[in-house]
Amino acid sequence: MSVSRPGPTRSEHDLLGDRDVPAAAYYGVHTLRAVENFPITGTPISAYPDLVTALAAVKQAAALANRDLGLLDERKVDAIVRACEEIRAGQWHDQFVVDVIQGGAGTSTNMNANEVVANRALELLGHAKGEYRHLHPLEDVNAGQSTNDVYPTAVRLSLQLAAVRLLEAMEVLREAFAAKAEEFADVLKMGRTQLQDAVPMTLGQEFAAYAVMLDEDRARLAEACALLREINLGGTAIGTGLNAHPAYPALACRHLGSITGIPVTVAGDLVEATQDMGAFVQLSGVLKRIAVKLSKTCNDLRLLSCGPRAGLAEINLPPVQAGSSIMPGKVNPVIPEVVNQIAFEVIGNDVTVTFAAEGGQLQLNAFEPVIAHSLLKSLTHLRAGCLTLAERCVTGITANREHLAGLVARSIGLATALNPHIGYEQATAVAQEALTTGASVHDLVLAKGLLTPERLQEILHPDNLARPHTRTATAVRV
Amino acid sequence: MSVSRPGPTRSEHDLLGDRDVPAAAYYGVHTLRAVENFPITGTPISAYPDLVTALAAVKQAAALANRDLGLLDERKVDAIVRACEEIRAGQWHDQFVVDVIQGGAGTSTNMNANEVVANRALELLGHAKGEYRHLHPLEDVNAGQSTNDVYPTAVRLSLQLAAVRLLEAMEVLREAFAAKAEEFADVLKMGRTQLQDAVPMTLGQEFAAYAVMLDEDRARLAEACALLREINLGGTAIGTGLNAHPAYPALACRHLGSITGIPVTVAGDLVEATQDMGAFVQLSGVLKRIAVKLSKTCNDLRLLSCGPRAGLAEINLPPVQAGSSIMPGKVNPVIPEVVNQIAFEVIGNDVTVTFAAEGGQLQLNAFEPVIAHSLLKSLTHLRAGCLTLAERCVTGITANREHLAGLVARSIGLATALNPHIGYEQATAVAQEALTTGASVHDLVLAKGLLTPERLQEILHPDNLARPHTRTATAVRV
Amino acid sequence: MSVSRPGPTRSEHDLLGDRDVPAAAYYGVHTLRAVENFPITGTPISAYPDLVTALAAVKQAAALANRDLGLLDERKVDAIVRACEEIRAGQWHDQFVVDVIQGGAGTSTNMNANEVVANRALELLGHAKGEYRHLHPLEDVNAGQSTNDVYPTAVRLSLQLAAVRLLEAMEVLREAFAAKAEEFADVLKMGRTQLQDAVPMTLGQEFAAYAVMLDEDRARLAEACALLREINLGGTAIGTGLNAHPAYPALACRHLGSITGIPVTVAGDLVEATQDMGAFVQLSGVLKRIAVKLSKTCNDLRLLSCGPRAGLAEINLPPVQAGSSIMPGKVNPVIPEVVNQIAFEVIGNDVTVTFAAEGGQLQLNAFEPVIAHSLLKSLTHLRAGCLTLAERCVTGITANREHLAGLVARSIGLATALNPHIGYEQATAVAQEALTTGASVHDLVLAKGLLTPERLQEILHPDNLARPHTRTATAVRV
Amino acid sequence: MSVSRPGPTRSEHDLLGDRDVPAAAYYGVHTLRAVENFPITGTPISAYPDLVTALAAVKQAAALANRDLGLLDERKVDAIVRACEEIRAGQWHDQFVVDVIQGGAGTSTNMNANEVVANRALELLGHAKGEYRHLHPLEDVNAGQSTNDVYPTAVRLSLQLAAVRLLEAMEVLREAFAAKAEEFADVLKMGRTQLQDAVPMTLGQEFAAYAVMLDEDRARLAEACALLREINLGGTAIGTGLNAHPAYPALACRHLGSITGIPVTVAGDLVEATQDMGAFVQLSGVLKRIAVKLSKTCNDLRLLSCGPRAGLAEINLPPVQAGSSIMPGKVNPVIPEVVNQIAFEVIGNDVTVTFAAEGGQLQLNAFEPVIAHSLLKSLTHLRAGCLTLAERCVTGITANREHLAGLVARSIGLATALNPHIGYEQATAVAQEALTTGASVHDLVLAKGLLTPERLQEILHPDNLARPHTRTATAVRV
Repeated sequence: MSVSRPGPTRSEHDLLGDRDVPAAAYYGVHTLRAVENFPITGTPISAYPDLVTALAAVKQAAALANRDLGLLDERKVDAIVRACEEIRAGQWHDQFVVDVIQGGAGTSTNMNANEVVANRALELLGHAKGEYRHLHPLEDVNAGQSTNDVYPTAVRLSLQLAAVRLLEAMEVLREAFAAKAEEFADVLKMGRTQLQDAVPMTLGQEFAAYAVMLDEDRARLAEACALLREINLGGTAIGTGLNAHPAYPALACRHLGSITGIPVTVAGDLVEATQDMGAFVQLSGVLKRIAVKLSKTCNDLRLLSCGPRAGLAEINLPPVQAGSSIMPGKVNPVIPEVVNQIAFEVIGNDVTVTFAAEGGQLQLNAFEPVIAHSLLKSLTHLRAGCLTLAERCVTGITANREHLAGLVARSIGLATALNPHIGYEQATAVAQEALTTGASVHDLVLAKGLLTPERLQEILHPDNLARPHTRTATAVRV
Repeated sequence: MSVSRPGPTRSEHDLLGDRDVPAAAYYGVHTLRAVENFPITGTPISAYPDLVTALAAVKQAAALANRDLGLLDERKVDAIVRACEEIRAGQWHDQFVVDVIQGGAGTSTNMNANEVVANRALELLGHAKGEYRHLHPLEDVNAGQSTNDVYPTAVRLSLQLAAVRLLEAMEVLREAFAAKAEEFADVLKMGRTQLQDAVPMTLGQEFAAYAVMLDEDRARLAEACALLREINLGGTAIGTGLNAHPAYPALACRHLGSITGIPVTVAGDLVEATQDMGAFVQLSGVLKRIAVKLSKTCNDLRLLSCGPRAGLAEINLPPVQAGSSIMPGKVNPVIPEVVNQIAFEVIGNDVTVTFAAEGGQLQLNAFEPVIAHSLLKSLTHLRAGCLTLAERCVTGITANREHLAGLVARSIGLATALNPHIGYEQATAVAQEALTTGASVHDLVLAKGLLTPERLQEILHPDNLARPHTRTATAVRV
Repeated sequence: MSVSRPGPTRSEHDLLGDRDVPAAAYYGVHTLRAVENFPITGTPISAYPDLVTALAAVKQAAALANRDLGLLDERKVDAIVRACEEIRAGQWHDQFVVDVIQGGAGTSTNMNANEVVANRALELLGHAKGEYRHLHPLEDVNAGQSTNDVYPTAVRLSLQLAAVRLLEAMEVLREAFAAKAEEFADVLKMGRTQLQDAVPMTLGQEFAAYAVMLDEDRARLAEACALLREINLGGTAIGTGLNAHPAYPALACRHLGSITGIPVTVAGDLVEATQDMGAFVQLSGVLKRIAVKLSKTCNDLRLLSCGPRAGLAEINLPPVQAGSSIMPGKVNPVIPEVVNQIAFEVIGNDVTVTFAAEGGQLQLNAFEPVIAHSLLKSLTHLRAGCLTLAERCVTGITANREHLAGLVARSIGLATALNPHIGYEQATAVAQEALTTGASVHDLVLAKGLLTPERLQEILHPDNLARPHTRTATAVRV
Repeated sequence: MSVSRPGPTRSEHDLLGDRDVPAAAYYGVHTLRAVENFPITGTPISAYPDLVTALAAVKQAAALANRDLGLLDERKVDAIVRACEEIRAGQWHDQFVVDVIQGGAGTSTNMNANEVVANRALELLGHAKGEYRHLHPLEDVNAGQSTNDVYPTAVRLSLQLAAVRLLEAMEVLREAFAAKAEEFADVLKMGRTQLQDAVPMTLGQEFAAYAVMLDEDRARLAEACALLREINLGGTAIGTGLNAHPAYPALACRHLGSITGIPVTVAGDLVEATQDMGAFVQLSGVLKRIAVKLSKTCNDLRLLSCGPRAGLAEINLPPVQAGSSIMPGKVNPVIPEVVNQIAFEVIGNDVTVTFAAEGGQLQLNAFEPVIAHSLLKSLTHLRAGCLTLAERCVTGITANREHLAGLVARSIGLATALNPHIGYEQATAVAQEALTTGASVHDLVLAKGLLTPERLQEILHPDNLARPHTRTATAVRV
């Protein structure tokens, strides 16, 4: 973003002196300097609309609380509120130009918000941008506030917004797995432990497990969100509330709740809340948990569809693109692969968040911007991954039913089911002979006369293999 | 550990053939092979008494459930129960000799438990060790079980036990900080954000924040423990419950609850529960959170005690050892330093757990041993760190009160408190002049006649600086 | 990026059927499907111009090698070469639209390149885009190639290009520190170990250490780059070279070297080279090393400039923006802070790379796109960080010379210098008395008559304190 | 370790006062306090014999350098040297009792070494332990030294020693893979990319790649070791060399080289070298690289041996123990599994090292003990893993040759080899028809008359499939 393009300008002033700001810009001198100071990623904070929206909500709530306390006159408040509502409706986002990775603990983001709100409010009041004597970015828009309570509050709100969307996407994916679990409920297959043939199960059970995992992860994410909704607004610079009216925190919080519809509460100890990154670390840990399980699930999908001829070939993923520039007809599991990569990114982000959180010192953590950046990326990419996986992969999965049935019939793992009937040591001997000779467990048991054909058939019945069953003559004595 | 020392032996048999086992050993051929296969860390699983105890509890519960179901005769059950109770009381732990890092998804640990319990039970029944025809490690002790439900259940129990002890240690540390918070409640000092002088607060507020953090972390740890108490006992090999009586899971779980006093419940989907590492990833994430905040706290303690002459020198940590082999009189913050290092280890362990959890495939995670090892280390070392920090550091901390008061009086940060009275821009001018000339904010304000001495004194009164205050003539209009 | 905007289209065909592609697009059906399949980050691969340039260089080298081998006719080769040169000159980058995080092991990136080169070449030959019977993206542009040798080669080249720019930026930063080391060569100050006053040194020595660290890190980065220049071009699908002429690898490599000016070589074992992520893991490890040391350096700068009144206040960082929306006159170390955050991001990226590298299976690693994305981000952001730190911070640093001198004079650490003269135990007693009474070490030594004033003055002379010195009457006997 | 057991004691004195030390102990009061201060892991530093040995070597070298400089009398030097040689020969290691995780930047480890050497030297001189007036742990054994140069030097030496042993183990494993590569040189199989059938190769090529990877990793490890051999001995407290004779560093370094046989050199900038953790971060990064590739290799071995009936079943790992407590005959890939877990631990250790290295402040890194602990663990466990993998797994691997040949014959991947002969689009059509109908590529090509049987046979000849081949009528024109 070029902020120094030629064209009409206005002059603004700060601690360091005067600077020309593009006349058309809603941001001001503080933002301008920040853009120059942080030419890092090229990605402006407007890349996270939730964050811009949340900032506007906080500014609006603060203005209303100040109005209630008689600290800001009605006309100014009205203009600020209207400017914030425009931003929350999606306008002026392109004026949030500071880099997502920035020094200053979010000060530049807060300054950017103060300046955009102030200049837009000035226009609404009939003044020119930059005429801060009529409405000041710091004295009015930022009244009773500090970056150190505004920014964390806005970040928490934006994470909450993004988390809700991730929860929805996870539910879409969960439903896709659950539908497949139902579709495959009667498909018997070999279960595997440590990549070795174990005992039979149904493909439906396998897919149901993926659905259950997502359900549990959704519960964990919802729990982590509860911590996000505890805010430190009103703590000002270090949580002591210096320069904020004692009634301000509760008032501002109440307004923020009405504006956003999010049930925010004020933290019990604002000094602690101002420096504490615990809610972010917790959220990051939960996102990592989601990533770990999504990745494991995608590994499984890729493994089960390994083939078409020289692999497990149990299921088929729907083809979504040609797989190779050299190998004709090759189709690859590109959707699970992209989700794996999102998971790896999220896991890396968790380490970034951990480092940034540990680096906080005394009354503040200066590294909250990279925490916000990392978490917003993780939430957004995980959401995209869940939807893509559901829509472009899971819903189209088919099973190779005969192949699966054949593997069970030939399996040595059937010997396990004989344990209670012929004992572990005899079952081991049968298993070893089957492995050596290539014979089936079924045939060996009959040949050795270890069980009657009827008894064997009953034991090896799919329903008895894949689900806990009651053996005859067993009575519970409790 | 040398398991092949000469001496009397007995012969045992497994899938691979016959092997001599030391006659005195309670473990058997499966354990022997595992010891030979995994000469990795030199640390046997007996290093985690909680894990050994938990294994015995599971074996005991399984035997009782099998008795209730009429699947194991009373005499065998009684012997197994007595053997398990001896182990739970601390006996025979030295017989748990498999390495903490082992292949096989915990099979060798389960085998070790089966063999020790069986051989001790055989003795109690009047038989010699190894006479498995009377009581068999697999057919009897392991009846209705699989490593894949026994081992995860035992690991979860052991983590629960260790977590409770960590919770207690965190409470000791929290109380130490809370006591200091009270002791320092009236010590005014400069708060700092981004390592720059910010606005005043009390040292009590600073220490109270550490206490609050620990309180919140304790709540998170307790939450994570709830997930540990959901077990998959009865799922057997892959969660389908093959070879277990349908009534077994509930029965075994009930017995396990009575034996341990821990309110365990059976997971809703045993296939999912058998492969899912979610509870471990969640616990690891919370331990990482605790580590991050403990480390930040220790960083603060080291920073605040930086000196004695050329640093912040706000507080003094009690000397616990000479600090240098070359610098006479030097005393170092060794206790916070050791806690920092524990935190770094826990954060590294979290990555290990993440990798291991992501590596699970299909119906099982083969890497649970390194997960258990990592989490048990983290829990144990964090506990040691909390107790050491409380007892050898926090309780002995003293404050340099006059020095702190002087810093506040000279501080430019006082200008912030003037904002609402003389405006941000004028306050900035005062701050800049103070910085340039070395004058105090107090003197400059009076010299410029910006406020009356009385008004200024009221604004700068410690109570008004460190705590939210009501300004005159302010009325809430809500 | 909306690829499905209405407007004129052309029809293209692939494995999955026919699709309309925007008529103006240089990319084709494979790219179109990839864009639809991977709506993940919103960042297209064109965000990495080095990667686009490198892809064009590889396509150009392959075409020339195929020409040399008589496998591609001159006219086609000329058109391909011209198209590639245009891309390398910066044209058509906006046609590289696939998401940076993508499944398929880079296939979509390679397809995107094949299609853009083919369509531009077709235009240059006087044909319409999409008339692939005249020049085919796969049969001609991709002739003798596979994604699995093209993509890794292009990624390596792009990393090499970005690494060279980072090396330059590191040198700028090194020079900035070296200049300060010279400027501060005579500024005596207290060195600190474990945040406790240790023994004197000069501020110049402190800054020289930062310069040396960068020098060493540059050497490590240069070493890691050597591995990047070993390529697997010619290995085709899995490194066996199927469908490539045996002379092709050496020829293509020679052309690639001439085109790029980078001395690439062919790997010794192409099967290994095709699946091996070692060079990326190594590079990532070195970038993490750079990040760790940059972060440590920034932590030091922030600590040394802690103040202005209540901190160490040894140095002053140049103010680059107002530091607070509430605290007038506050200036924060925002430049070091942003560099810390870049470092945390790079460290997280290293974990992402580690996960992705470990996830490779058999003959290929499907996760190379996220590896490339992570490394390119790390290289680019570190470069920005080094330049920003040099230009906006280090060059403007000033020292508070009197304050530093005063700290040395008052320091208890001076007692260390007395060790060889009065012994460790007596020096300890002096140090303890100084600490307790507030007296200076200098005065106590004289008061106790431990040394003559002349001897003491000599021992405490700045030159003797900050640099190894020869004591009188010492002769080396070797 | 109980240090407060009743029994005869001697009294020792330090900064904090008098303490009773067990009369039999070679360590003294400083060690005693450290043991009490750091009850963290229960693992004493004697768990790392290389570290103990290295400490003795440093003490010995320092004594000899001081002798050369006339700073320590011959009798004392002789006693110190003899004591150090005893320790290097393996004696008194049980007296190194401080915990591996300790605060104080290694001070307690250095103190422990000083005291053990001093007390043993006192005995050799005919004095009682504790009679420090005859030979003092600090004034004599530690003469001219500081923890801050002794400890890093000893840690580097110990890492070098452990790294050499890892290099040897890696060579054993490399040879095991290379032998298998030769044994399987003619075993044709399907190569796989993205877990999908790709094109043929030999099993020998697959195993050769593992050997090559190890070779490259050995080169990287050797490179990293070079950095370890640059030491800061003579820098004393902060690298300025205060209290060390200017000739001391070179002399001590020369002695250390002769004693250990390791070609150590003195760092160019001792201030930088004293605070710099770069060599450790680099080593850790390389160990992580080794871990990543070992883990990938083990993943492959587990995948290729997946079966026995329902998996890829390409190779058989030698059975080393029974695999299941419930599934008879099941044999699991326990050796690769344990190596995977070691890899995960090493990767986690790398994060610990990263955190600890980043946490250094100003002239020293206080967290070097946890860095040493992590790296020594990684080196030791990786070595155990390599040897175990070589001896208990790789050497016993067998191939299922017919099964592999059958998979190639049925493979659709053969279509790729037809590309240059029938074109990508026609080859795609054949591949798709083969997939749909189940027919073989071979039969379809003949049925469609696309190639003559002779031509087809030549193209599909194993030698032509698995290795780059010259096509007829191709001449290189360069």
